[in-house]
Amino acid sequence: MRNKLQKLLERKILLFDGAMGTQLNLQYPEEGNLEYPHLVKEVHQSYKDKGCDVIGTNTFGANRAKLAQRLALDKLVEINRQGVKLAKEIAGDQLLVAGIIGPTGKLLKPYGTLSFDEAKEIFAEQGKILIESGVDFILIETMSDILEMKAAVVGIKEIADIPIICTATFDQKGKILTGADAQTVATVLESLGVTAIGANCGVDIPSMIEVIKGMTEVTNLPLIAQPNGGLPKYINGKTEYLMDLDRFKIEVEGLLAAGVQGIGGCCGTDPHHIEILKKLTEKRKPILPSDFSLSKLAGARKTVVFTEKSPTKVIGERLNTTAQPKLKEAVTRGEISPFIEMALKQVEKGAALLDVNIGISLEKELEMMPKVIEGLQQSIDIPLVIDTTYPQVMEEALKVYRGKPLLNSTTGDRKNLEKVIELAQKYGGAIVALTLTEKGLPKRAEERVEIAREILAIAQEKGFGKENIWIDPLVLTAGANGDLVLETIKGVKMIKEELGGQTLLGISNISYGLPNRSWLNSHFLTLALTAGLDLPIVNPEDPLIWQSIKCADVFTGKDSGAKNYSLEKIPNEKG
Amino acid sequence: MRNKLQKLLERKILLFDGAMGTQLNLQYPEEGNLEYPHLVKEVHQSYKDKGCDVIGTNTFGANRAKLAQRLALDKLVEINRQGVKLAKEIAGDQLLVAGIIGPTGKLLKPYGTLSFDEAKEIFAEQGKILIESGVDFILIETMSDILEMKAAVVGIKEIADIPIICTATFDQKGKILTGADAQTVATVLESLGVTAIGANCGVDIPSMIEVIKGMTEVTNLPLIAQPNGGLPKYINGKTEYLMDLDRFKIEVEGLLAAGVQGIGGCCGTDPHHIEILKKLTEKRKPILPSDFSLSKLAGARKTVVFTEKSPTKVIGERLNTTAQPKLKEAVTRGEISPFIEMALKQVEKGAALLDVNIGISLEKELEMMPKVIEGLQQSIDIPLVIDTTYPQVMEEALKVYRGKPLLNSTTGDRKNLEKVIELAQKYGGAIVALTLTEKGLPKRAEERVEIAREILAIAQEKGFGKENIWIDPLVLTAGANGDLVLETIKGVKMIKEELGGQTLLGISNISYGLPNRSWLNSHFLTLALTAGLDLPIVNPEDPLIWQSIKCADVFTGKDSGAKNYSLEKIPNEKG
Ligand SMILES: [Zn+2]
Ligand SMILES: [Zn+2]
Ligand SMILES: [Zn+2]
Repeated sequence: MRNKLQKLLERKILLFDGAMGTQLNLQYPEEGNLEYPHLVKEVHQSYKDKGCDVIGTNTFGANRAKLAQRLALDKLVEINRQGVKLAKEIAGDQLLVAGIIGPTGKLLKPYGTLSFDEAKEIFAEQGKILIESGVDFILIETMSDILEMKAAVVGIKEIADIPIICTATFDQKGKILTGADAQTVATVLESLGVTAIGANCGVDIPSMIEVIKGMTEVTNLPLIAQPNGGLPKYINGKTEYLMDLDRFKIEVEGLLAAGVQGIGGCCGTDPHHIEILKKLTEKRKPILPSDFSLSKLAGARKTVVFTEKSPTKVIGERLNTTAQPKLKEAVTRGEISPFIEMALKQVEKGAALLDVNIGISLEKELEMMPKVIEGLQQSIDIPLVIDTTYPQVMEEALKVYRGKPLLNSTTGDRKNLEKVIELAQKYGGAIVALTLTEKGLPKRAEERVEIAREILAIAQEKGFGKENIWIDPLVLTAGANGDLVLETIKGVKMIKEELGGQTLLGISNISYGLPNRSWLNSHFLTLALTAGLDLPIVNPEDPLIWQSIKCADVFTGKDSGAKNYSLEKIPNEKG
Repeated sequence: MRNKLQKLLERKILLFDGAMGTQLNLQYPEEGNLEYPHLVKEVHQSYKDKGCDVIGTNTFGANRAKLAQRLALDKLVEINRQGVKLAKEIAGDQLLVAGIIGPTGKLLKPYGTLSFDEAKEIFAEQGKILIESGVDFILIETMSDILEMKAAVVGIKEIADIPIICTATFDQKGKILTGADAQTVATVLESLGVTAIGANCGVDIPSMIEVIKGMTEVTNLPLIAQPNGGLPKYINGKTEYLMDLDRFKIEVEGLLAAGVQGIGGCCGTDPHHIEILKKLTEKRKPILPSDFSLSKLAGARKTVVFTEKSPTKVIGERLNTTAQPKLKEAVTRGEISPFIEMALKQVEKGAALLDVNIGISLEKELEMMPKVIEGLQQSIDIPLVIDTTYPQVMEEALKVYRGKPLLNSTTGDRKNLEKVIELAQKYGGAIVALTLTEKGLPKRAEERVEIAREILAIAQEKGFGKENIWIDPLVLTAGANGDLVLETIKGVKMIKEELGGQTLLGISNISYGLPNRSWLNSHFLTLALTAGLDLPIVNPEDPLIWQSIKCADVFTGKDSGAKNYSLEKIPNEKG
């Protein structure tokens, strides 16, 4: 069900207000709610006068972490309550009031000492007061770390069902502080279920335009842009934002053309800027994005988008303690460097995602999975696949993961499936669901497809889209299962054609216990990809795997006219 | 429609007579028809007295080639006419009269100077007299060269529609003079459309039993055995066949157990032997072979049988002047040694059959195809694939080919198809039919399957069985045809599943014009084999092709439990 904010965003380009902090010009702007309420209201009124649709509360820095630093923790409740009250007094019935939440000002682990749960509590605490005081929605802004955004959104979601907008601050290269690009920020925020996303503050408008464009490529959520009024400069000991209003107008037109559905101003903007935005937007209809829902997964800094015609992408299988004694020893000793080495090797060889499987025991997984993921994220940009059968382990991993991971896996049993879907919905993520129930794995493709159908139906009940589900009809070992191995291929084809579902397979199982495993792996992969397999888990260090992928992409039209194939320079084609 | 002989063979074990030549003991037995007709009749009567069902005319050596050598050519007509007359006088209405035809006594090219057409005329001449004189069927016996058998059968078929039995003489290793084994003799004779086949004369009965067993593995034609009365020995200047009758009885029981449906005696047998055979067979029902029609092709000495569960066999593609400049030059110079070298290499690498394509021009093909095939047959045992679009070239090749070849190819156009089927029926052969008509190659699998359906219907009209047809739904080049390449794979699957048809594909076309051709070839081959492809044309010198086959056989259950696969010793599995 669409909320009021969503409906409004579809009807018109929503006009946000301009800066509060730079207008008030106080050392601690939020304390102004208590000390100078008339000044705060004046700023609100000045924007209302120019025709904005949204008034943001003066509560950006009014969270426990920031207030404690300036010994104002005792005023937390009052500042936030009063902030909402002042905004509502000006907003009246016509304008929406956004409950503004800014960053904690502290770094989360491993860059700082703040844990996900601590950050979440900070945001929940502030959010609860704002919501109880009557804001229309929450606007989390100026975020620079995906994990902190997650903590903020999860924290708010836990306490109330209220629309959330989250905007982040990007540098001139289109990255946030922790290195994530616009697509990654958009992917993660979308997966957290927010109502709109966007960019605010930051550097110049042209680079913000690129950020918005990047976001439109991966999401159809409404996009909000709140640029600054110019570049900050210190003049006579004061920060000034210098940009003449004509240039602001021209540059902001670029933002509108890029497709934003909400616009306002950040630092250095004043009623003049909002007046310009009002003129530019009042007769303009929002550009509504087409109704698509791309499959995508995000790492700490990069996003992988899956489309029908893009080249096959693979998950590297090697971070698995069962298959790698070296990793098993590392886990026993609590070390993570062997994981990082092996991860870098797989990335070098072309893996688009990496599976991480700790195995061993629940206790070890609970201890080591978050550690390994934290470690990997510092060196690895691409998405990780959290490979465990324990929902508890998934949840601990989700609390440290700076992206949208693939949770691998759940069975088709309703209880397990619902639990994993709930985790994915809460923390942002996609899932792998095996065509397996407590009765075991059915022999025939048709029965596996029936389980897949049930999985997709349960997901739909829970509002969890197909684009976030990869069905795994499971590869059997060729040595033990004879011609049953082709049931898996048939399953892949049927799940795609009959259910429109995505599939994933752990390819190497086909050759388990046999010699020349690469042969079977690569030729089975060709069959699977040609039948429509979306996402294989393979050893990317095996060149035969790439042979298979290059060929299959030609056969399936993902490499039309064999153009990519023809670029291959292989010295010895005889293998 | 079954003829009288066929019906009889199903009802009882047909008892043939014993030796004529060794009983008459004349220098030129056939002249006895004119000079000692009472002696000939006495021999016939002696067998009739023992209860035989068939009397063979005393015309074994009464052909133009043999009579000319003893300056009795002028008596050819009379000897044969009289031979039939004498036999019929004894046979009366109860017994069948077999018109006996033996070899020319000359070697056919390239071992001798006799051409196929010359040999055919010799057999046709004698056969015509025998048939016009009223024999019930023709029995061609003691043959030792497949090409001479073909000449005899084709010669008789051209002049009359009469049942033909053909039996050959095998050595102790189960081979005929030119090296062909029992399965090859059976395969070729069956493809010529004879009523029954078998073995006569030769060495000992135990080795004849093995020959009969070999034949039962590949054909369900009635099998006839006419063993000698013992091993020939020169005693006091006379040839004697020594074997005591008790031993003859015991050994002949082995022949009956092996499944013969007709039995009699060759050299050294007399009425005592026939008396024994009568007692052994009179209360015995023939063992009727189960109703199967195996797909098989024969080379000069070896036969390839195609069954659902046997490992994939391939046709070597390399004897093709278009792809091999070396061969093109050889053809221009009229040389065949480069063909033989390249053929041996392919056999060494595991080809089960070899394609031979001369290309260039009709004139060159007419000149060189028979030469190349004659040359290849001297070194190569396995079946050849006669690859030409000209029916004239096929016919000239068929006249020198000592086996059952695959004629590659005809289109689906009725006129062309009927012409090629007629050649295959006349000379013995199987065909490749392309799913192509004068309208071109249809894009979609469904349309190709419709052409295949029509091909099989036309073949059925002509009494040409599915087991002798390989449908080629044609491989398109991946570079130019994008995802249409999978239509071919779909076609293979549909032709198998919907029509029960066999398929053949020239795999290498997939990679035409692209780099790293082996990759595409081998991975496309995996797709085709897994979809049910029966017979690929490939480069057997490419190791990736064998990788594909080993894997596909595992996936399709042709290599159950990956047993063959596991035997592979590959030093470097990473390719
Ligand atoms: Zn700002
Ligand atoms: Zn701001
Ligand atoms: Zn004999």
